Amino acid sequence: MKVFIAGIDGYLGWALAQYLTARGHEVAGTDRYLRREWVEEMGSVSALPIVSMEERLAAFRERYGKDLIFREGDLLDYPFLRDFFADFQPDAIVHLAEMPSAPYSMIDQAHSVWTHTNNVNGSLNVLWAMREVCPDAHLVKLGTMGEYGTPNLDIPEGFFEVEFRGRKERLPFPRQPGSFYHLTKVHDTHNTIFACRVWGLRSTDIMQGVVFGTQIDEMAGDPRLGSRLDFDQCFGTAINRFCCQAVIGHPLTLYGKGGQTRGFLPMRDSMQCLTIAIENPPQKGEYRVFNQFEECYTIEELAYKVQEAAASVGLTVEIAHYDNPRKELETHYYNPDRQNLIDLGYKPSHDVVAEMQIMLRDLLPHKERILAHRAILVPDIRWDGTRRKSDIVTVAAGEPVKP
Amino acid sequence: MKVFIAGIDGYLGWALAQYLTARGHEVAGTDRYLRREWVEEMGSVSALPIVSMEERLAAFRERYGKDLIFREGDLLDYPFLRDFFADFQPDAIVHLAEMPSAPYSMIDQAHSVWTHTNNVNGSLNVLWAMREVCPDAHLVKLGTMGEYGTPNLDIPEGFFEVEFRGRKERLPFPRQPGSFYHLTKVHDTHNTIFACRVWGLRSTDIMQGVVFGTQIDEMAGDPRLGSRLDFDQCFGTAINRFCCQAVIGHPLTLYGKGGQTRGFLPMRDSMQCLTIAIENPPQKGEYRVFNQFEECYTIEELAYKVQEAAASVGLTVEIAHYDNPRKELETHYYNPDRQNLIDLGYKPSHDVVAEMQIMLRDLLPHKERILAHRAILVPDIRWDGTRRKSDIVTVAAGEPVKP
Repeated sequence: MKVFIAGIDGYLGWALAQYLTARGHEVAGTDRYLRREWVEEMGSVSALPIVSMEERLAAFRERYGKDLIFREGDLLDYPFLRDFFADFQPDAIVHLAEMPSAPYSMIDQAHSVWTHTNNVNGSLNVLWAMREVCPDAHLVKLGTMGEYGTPNLDIPEGFFEVEFRGRKERLPFPRQPGSFYHLTKVHDTHNTIFACRVWGLRSTDIMQGVVFGTQIDEMAGDPRLGSRLDFDQCFGTAINRFCCQAVIGHPLTLYGKGGQTRGFLPMRDSMQCLTIAIENPPQKGEYRVFNQFEECYTIEELAYKVQEAAASVGLTVEIAHYDNPRKELETHYYNPDRQNLIDLGYKPSHDVVAEMQIMLRDLLPHKERILAHRAILVPDIRWDGTRRKSDIVTVAAGEPVKP
Repeated sequence: MKVFIAGIDGYLGWALAQYLTARGHEVAGTDRYLRREWVEEMGSVSALPIVSMEERLAAFRERYGKDLIFREGDLLDYPFLRDFFADFQPDAIVHLAEMPSAPYSMIDQAHSVWTHTNNVNGSLNVLWAMREVCPDAHLVKLGTMGEYGTPNLDIPEGFFEVEFRGRKERLPFPRQPGSFYHLTKVHDTHNTIFACRVWGLRSTDIMQGVVFGTQIDEMAGDPRLGSRLDFDQCFGTAINRFCCQAVIGHPLTLYGKGGQTRGFLPMRDSMQCLTIAIENPPQKGEYRVFNQFEECYTIEELAYKVQEAAASVGLTVEIAHYDNPRKELETHYYNPDRQNLIDLGYKPSHDVVAEMQIMLRDLLPHKERILAHRAILVPDIRWDGTRRKSDIVTVAAGEPVKP
């Protein structure tokens, strides 16, 4: 199949381009390198050094024996996007080109508005361009499990059947997201449902959990083929950040009680799931939702797993509770469905600690890069619109932490 | 109270400024005159001639014996907005400054994206500016009944209690809007709920029905104090458009079967309701929803009422069904709640035909203005992204139509 990836220079996009190519698909993509800029703005770097797109493309050609079709550009540039779609005529479009950070969207008015412009208008342009030049293509849209928030109910996959005053109806499950970033994904969801309904587009909206991991097998240890790995407060997601902290012996930064429960999945499962969606497209006019994660854990459980994985590779690390800069429930009910992907053949990895061990081994050679940026490990972006570093409230399980 | 009106030059904003001033409130407001530009872009004019803001302000001073505090500006200009809020220190902010047309938002990619930028980012700026300089103010946000769409269920006021797999929860009622314009209002709703939750802002989100009417008593027949009245396919809402058509003997343009049911209210009820919301603010941190309409009718019922009102003032008018340029259900269940405003004292007018008679008498002297723009009475903006004039499908009551 011909697969277009928006955000192909990113954490998932670069890995997916390789995963799909290795399976025989033809891949094209675009990027404006905004992720590289944003991480720099946060005073950080990728823990794993990444090369320029030119070098990436050369390494890609060497390894896969064909060119990756790439054009630098911006989803906000509508003629660019439409013409690229028109030239490539994709069967599937994987949209990974949104600003992905909750704290970044909460920094101030300008960051919040920019997140809306980039994410919502960029996604709108994808829908309009599909309508105009490739209306039969399948949009695989990256949403987030965070769209649902943490309701005191089971979370279905996008829709639920309800009875209200004696009448029954299948309705979109109400979204109660927890940051402006998450809100932009909710806005996309509503816009995409509408485009499928009025224009007959087809889309799989992926409510993805938090992804972690430093590699997929296809990268074959070539550092030019490796994905970036962020550990700052904005672009470092929980497990990735914890593993970087473990490597330099920084206490793992739990926010508040650490009872926040989320769905997680290793990068290799994310690749598997996105590919299942691509290879099993919905009907024309169909909008469907896949909740995409491997298993749910509390943040504290994950910290203990990282501690365990770290011990197994000879690293000692403490777990500390920091005052929570976010406004969120720190203990809550959480029971999301995850059946659609299983029905299509998804086989979860089910070995989180083994994945963490791989990550720690990949990160250890780059300890100095992380150490040089240790000042950015403790968050200071607060949901109330101010900035102030979090303080350690308690250290878990007494000190020192048993290795 | 000190009330700030965003969109004070508009159909509702200009009337509300007077209604509130007459009740003793202190009013300030802003506008960028975009509505005037948009209607011109549609090749149309206000059926009732309106004067410049300078002349409006002079007439206001004459009639009410005080100045209306006005600054020309744009909600997308954040420093302008924040500084105006900081200087005025409003108790309430009424946000009427969004692009209000479903067809306009559907014209093409550029109009759809612009609608998102103007509406969603403008509203975001209002939230951030409130947080920054007047966090205790009450945001009276104009949403639309169209946010809900036409589900096969009763429509509550914003939230409903549901049971799902044995657990109960109060959830936002799912929104299934029918155009990109309506979608922007849904996005605002989600953003506003969030801002109330994390920042402790307070807001009344008004899900308003379709407003009609040419005047409120406060205008006292002074044409400089009158509001605009649009009749083009984008900015002319159903009853206003029908009355303008009746005045020139153009068939009333029903889209499709005409069984589409909506809530409607006369402008004087809209003023009454908005004022009730302003004068009865919610608690800090509270987000509440008022469904604001007087009664529900099918579009066909309204056409017959306009026909009846027209006959009573000596006008003969036919009703014609045009092929529907929109994608919408033409017959459906519709039973929205409307209790919150009643509980706070709203007394519905309950005399739609009398209001239509006033409108027709106000419009008759301006028959030539409408006649000069009769070419724009039949819609051509289609939900599939194309433009093609609708054709007459059938004429009601077996009458031949002379277009």
